[in-house]
Amino acid sequence: MGKPAHGGNLVWASALAGCPPSAILDFSASISPLGPPESVLTAIQSQLSNLRHYPDPSYSDLSLSLSHFHNLPSEWILPGNGSAELLSFVGRELSEFETTTLITPAFGDYYRALAAYNAQVLEFPLISGEWKVLSAELLEKLITHHSALSTHYSTLLLNNPHNPTGVIFSREDILPCLDKFALVVIDEAFMDFLPPDEQQSLISVVQDYPNLVILRSLTKFYSIPGLRLGYAIAHPNRLQRYKTWRDPWSVNTLASAAGVAALSDTEFQASTCSWLPKARKELFEGLSQIPGLQPLPSAANFLLVQSEHSCVELQHRLLKNHQILIRDCQSFPQLGDRFFRVAVRTELDNKRLLTALQSVLL
Amino acid sequence: MGKPAHGGNLVWASALAGCPPSAILDFSASISPLGPPESVLTAIQSQLSNLRHYPDPSYSDLSLSLSHFHNLPSEWILPGNGSAELLSFVGRELSEFETTTLITPAFGDYYRALAAYNAQVLEFPLISGEWKVLSAELLEKLITHHSALSTHYSTLLLNNPHNPTGVIFSREDILPCLDKFALVVIDEAFMDFLPPDEQQSLISVVQDYPNLVILRSLTKFYSIPGLRLGYAIAHPNRLQRYKTWRDPWSVNTLASAAGVAALSDTEFQASTCSWLPKARKELFEGLSQIPGLQPLPSAANFLLVQSEHSCVELQHRLLKNHQILIRDCQSFPQLGDRFFRVAVRTELDNKRLLTALQSVLL
Repeated sequence: MGKPAHGGNLVWASALAGCPPSAILDFSASISPLGPPESVLTAIQSQLSNLRHYPDPSYSDLSLSLSHFHNLPSEWILPGNGSAELLSFVGRELSEFETTTLITPAFGDYYRALAAYNAQVLEFPLISGEWKVLSAELLEKLITHHSALSTHYSTLLLNNPHNPTGVIFSREDILPCLDKFALVVIDEAFMDFLPPDEQQSLISVVQDYPNLVILRSLTKFYSIPGLRLGYAIAHPNRLQRYKTWRDPWSVNTLASAAGVAALSDTEFQASTCSWLPKARKELFEGLSQIPGLQPLPSAANFLLVQSEHSCVELQHRLLKNHQILIRDCQSFPQLGDRFFRVAVRTELDNKRLLTALQSVLL
Repeated sequence: MGKPAHGGNLVWASALAGCPPSAILDFSASISPLGPPESVLTAIQSQLSNLRHYPDPSYSDLSLSLSHFHNLPSEWILPGNGSAELLSFVGRELSEFETTTLITPAFGDYYRALAAYNAQVLEFPLISGEWKVLSAELLEKLITHHSALSTHYSTLLLNNPHNPTGVIFSREDILPCLDKFALVVIDEAFMDFLPPDEQQSLISVVQDYPNLVILRSLTKFYSIPGLRLGYAIAHPNRLQRYKTWRDPWSVNTLASAAGVAALSDTEFQASTCSWLPKARKELFEGLSQIPGLQPLPSAANFLLVQSEHSCVELQHRLLKNHQILIRDCQSFPQLGDRFFRVAVRTELDNKRLLTALQSVLL
């Protein structure tokens, strides 16, 4: 079996660990350990008797919930079979322009979606030799660099917060990009992990920028990646066009109902806010104290860690001796074998990881 | 709310009928009334705790089941988020050729998928004025007609059994098309409704024809359209290419598990075989006896009915007075207001339809 290009591949991991997939403690996929919320599971159960019907092609319930949640007219929001489905449409549209600037290292499926329609990628490195980059400076540099290109033909695909580093770009720093690029796509898959007053989402300005597309995911925060659910926020004309590129029923009935329940579950949302900052801080400090490891400050629910040891070796030892799966960074060419990524999990799980890391690094 | 272009739109229907969607008796979607099988619901339940994980991107369990079911190597089979997802990829590939011949009337989403990539459609009418066409003659005519076109640049998209007419083309009649067209796509979404010894699937010859793509659905026979599940059968190189056009997780975990359970549920398969021929015959005869209505003989789980009355009016009356939804054929330009389509349902449901039709036609 080939090495997985993404996190969360438990079939691959369990073969290596010699245990069933369910026995793996998965730090490789950046999914909340708190969910799925009970409300979501109840909503799924209640819809099992509806599986005999096609999904409502207008997804009116889900659209209404999203519209209320973001205080936007529903025609500005398009649900998808995971934000990954919508990324493919974004890839198709980006390929209609001359270039797409991509901050690297970047989520592997960006390359896939851009290559699927032969989009021209310009890589712009976030990390080049040094560890910490001020995100404001980076975007300034990007805009200066970009001034040499034509505004009409070049586009930007930006991940905020950025995966795998956890860097957050501020709204103010991103806004000038909207005047410089013909199309700007912001993947905000992890934005909901930030406390509301710290979020840097561009949703609040989307109605002012017809050249802006925002991708959002509901599967990471609510722990339902197996169900597939995300959405795009953009000008209604653009979303109408995307709809002609796919069949009318791409979001399954259970995912649609799960989304409605999730968005209104303020209790679950609050529990995430009270878990993450503390758990991330403790995991960060624990990792910092292990000789040879240095985590990068992160605004998201994962930490990128630089290591003096081979991370592939580390990954294999953790799997074989502790049934713990971390994300190696081999699929990010800019990172390679000296970086790994871990999700922030519960305090108990995080301690198990720290103890296991200490033991395999002895 | 706009008129739906497809069957099964219960949100639209319930607004017109003035009742909740669950109160509608749906004859408009061609879905088996027998399912979902218990085995499928149990499989879904058992996977709810796995929603917190990404689907296995190799879908190894489902692939193995499909491979056993069709006695084909698994690399010849690609699962999809409904066969509708795979149809979009087919549309993209067909657009790379000069023309795609489409037997009409045709499933509306064929036009959508072909238009999404600007494929050139040549319409070839199955029904032109007269009611019954021998399918063998039609394909002969098609091949003769097609000899004027270049084999290297023209393609064929054929639905077998054909929706909305229920016509079945024999394997022997289709085979010559494979030598005449550069690419032949057979949508066999309803093939599993035929008794095994009457099926005309091309799966048994797919390994001999690198220019053949077969689309199959699991949602109609097993009554799970809300879950989305289908697959393509074609040369591994072609399927690998389709995979680069989408993200790695397009089939959700519950659909994947449902597929495994469904394929091994021989009891449910047998119950369908013993229900359909008798129920269809009775519904056919009942419809024939209603003055002004004439059903077309069908090999599938639905009947196309020609009517002397306006079918849109008929549809509205059935909805308002009986909460029964039939499929008008307005979205098929070749059919218009003098045809409607009904699914074959249980004997009890079918009788309810016949009684209601008689009452609104009085």
